[in-house]
Amino acid sequence: MLKISHRGQEMPPSPIRKLVPFAEAAKKKGIKVFHLNIGQPDIETPPQILDAVRQADFTILEYSHSAGNESYRRKLVQYYAGVGINVNHHQIIVTTGGSEAILFGFMACLDAGDEVIIPEPFYANYNGFAVEADVVVKPITSNIETGFALPPIQDFEKAITAKTKAIVICNPNNPTGYLYSREEMETLKKIVQKHNLYLFADEAYREFCYTSEHVSAMHLTGVDDHVVLMDTISKRYSACGGRIGAFVTRNQQVLDAVMKFAQARLSPPSFAQILGEAAVDLPADYFNTTKAEYKKRRDTIVTRLNAIPGVFCPNPGGAFYAMARLPIEDADKFCQWLLESFDHNGHTIMLAPATGFYGTPGLGKNEVRLAYVLNTDAINGAMDCLEKALQVYPGRIG
Amino acid sequence: MLKISHRGQEMPPSPIRKLVPFAEAAKKKGIKVFHLNIGQPDIETPPQILDAVRQADFTILEYSHSAGNESYRRKLVQYYAGVGINVNHHQIIVTTGGSEAILFGFMACLDAGDEVIIPEPFYANYNGFAVEADVVVKPITSNIETGFALPPIQDFEKAITAKTKAIVICNPNNPTGYLYSREEMETLKKIVQKHNLYLFADEAYREFCYTSEHVSAMHLTGVDDHVVLMDTISKRYSACGGRIGAFVTRNQQVLDAVMKFAQARLSPPSFAQILGEAAVDLPADYFNTTKAEYKKRRDTIVTRLNAIPGVFCPNPGGAFYAMARLPIEDADKFCQWLLESFDHNGHTIMLAPATGFYGTPGLGKNEVRLAYVLNTDAINGAMDCLEKALQVYPGRIG
Repeated sequence: MLKISHRGQEMPPSPIRKLVPFAEAAKKKGIKVFHLNIGQPDIETPPQILDAVRQADFTILEYSHSAGNESYRRKLVQYYAGVGINVNHHQIIVTTGGSEAILFGFMACLDAGDEVIIPEPFYANYNGFAVEADVVVKPITSNIETGFALPPIQDFEKAITAKTKAIVICNPNNPTGYLYSREEMETLKKIVQKHNLYLFADEAYREFCYTSEHVSAMHLTGVDDHVVLMDTISKRYSACGGRIGAFVTRNQQVLDAVMKFAQARLSPPSFAQILGEAAVDLPADYFNTTKAEYKKRRDTIVTRLNAIPGVFCPNPGGAFYAMARLPIEDADKFCQWLLESFDHNGHTIMLAPATGFYGTPGLGKNEVRLAYVLNTDAINGAMDCLEKALQVYPGRIG
Repeated sequence: MLKISHRGQEMPPSPIRKLVPFAEAAKKKGIKVFHLNIGQPDIETPPQILDAVRQADFTILEYSHSAGNESYRRKLVQYYAGVGINVNHHQIIVTTGGSEAILFGFMACLDAGDEVIIPEPFYANYNGFAVEADVVVKPITSNIETGFALPPIQDFEKAITAKTKAIVICNPNNPTGYLYSREEMETLKKIVQKHNLYLFADEAYREFCYTSEHVSAMHLTGVDDHVVLMDTISKRYSACGGRIGAFVTRNQQVLDAVMKFAQARLSPPSFAQILGEAAVDLPADYFNTTKAEYKKRRDTIVTRLNAIPGVFCPNPGGAFYAMARLPIEDADKFCQWLLESFDHNGHTIMLAPATGFYGTPGLGKNEVRLAYVLNTDAINGAMDCLEKALQVYPGRIG
């Protein structure tokens, strides 16, 4: 009998995957499902950047440079300068989505058995990349009462061992929407300096900050060798299917190592590099419009959530996610019930149970993540469903 | 001082990378370099499949299904049926190039420390994926005298240990161009059955067979659980930059495991899935034309090589590579000399030293790989250079 590998067994399935058959069954019954469960924006990809791909003039779809087309990397230098990040094109390796940038960072910087500290709740796929790189995720808990602010410095100190090699910070945060302040970023700087750690910064949602300016890990001074930016164009241009990201650091040794991983897989996708390059030339107000739309949705969803008796939702400072605590005991069961046994005028709602975002077993059982990737009418429809559902849910508590 | 990981250190650089600066310097001096060193075909990507991408009608570049668009997978079923491989669309996971299919196979099927047997010389990037998955490559030597036929069964038996979990077979072979016969494939079947091993089949060059029909590992009967096909559209449609491949197996447990790796990175690139889907509808004679062109080039390069005194080049049955033994002691030095110190009427040639394709140190020192990805005029020009170079090379022996 042939066996799959241990990592093949340990690899976590997508946390919402188990709900998908229930969503499909609901749709078969004719129920309309509001999908607030995934981070796939409904915002149109800017037509001019799709046109750049359509009009690109070439006859052979060739491998690009393993680090990405030089013209694209030079253009990215311009983009990064615009957000206060000064790097040159040799410090950028274009990746196949942010996913590959994270995997490259884990692979090139961390040994098997090394530990990486991540404030929880966190983006569930970090677990998958950790299994691939045989790295141990050590969660430290952030809390819904503080809106998921950075855990106190003592919590980091307590979690750090001789095996700790890195901290991952997602800012603004998926799944919490929390936007880390300058002070919090400076705190992280002190920790990585004191304990000689890498700071892996996932800034996929950089453009969507509502309460204050974004402070990038790349803005921190004196930690050039520590900071690695794992970036993606997926969310900022609504271009998730392009699979274009970037691995950015001023640490030459890390760049040299990651370049070897990049060469092994030959090149990132060519079509979407054209799209990414064109995107840097979008009008200066492009993000204003998108951001205004997301902010309106955030205001709507947060107001509606907090108006439901027993529900608490801190106001997220960025990204397009909100975490809410519900008057229930088991969000996994509740989310399944919403799809299996509930509808409100032929509508229901699909949410992501928060348990999948916590590394510590048992946490987040009464929390859900809501992605506000639908327009405000749909959000209001979804909130009507949730309000009604919590009135009639047999498992409601309090 | 921050350190990179052990695998970051062990990760092999691209074997031809060290020659690139010399090629650039030659070009700066005004020398035209014939590039026979890389597998980037000069054949045009079929315009109709590029048009399919240009004309695709969508407004949001969304994530695809993690296994690839269902419409594309259903189309691939049709393609595979056409080459005698019967699978359904649930048995196909679309990957980011053949590279990701190989990595997924190593990750999902092999544990850290497990061994994989690969006839050498072999595609150098297998080493990189082995480092990523912490797997040990055990080379068994195939020989230029036999044209790089499958090593005898005893060589496999000798190499197999309790840690051996898989054999990788690239057919037709990169870098040798060798096309494995039905008997050789049946031999491999017996070995994987007897020793309970996976058979990982890299068939990137399936369409380019010149001496007999291609025998796929997927054609073998009774080893459904053993065989994993790692496929790509890069070479068959001259679409290397698309980064679209496929992981294909009838082993359900392996599919379930690989699906989790696929979910972690969300989706393969969307644009090139459209291209891949359109490619299945290319006219039936598409491959005939391409194959006839490659065959003409093969005949030219092999004839020219064997006409040079002291050179031996077995006639490859497939792919678009030839391996040649040269009357020199050190191909790495010779290839550098060609770029650094030689020209013939303002032309020189870039070749891949074979040492990078052998796992056993010291082998292949007087061999080079030539990729016949240039038209016959260019190949003749390149062979004129090589002929002249071997007349004047100070390190010539014999």
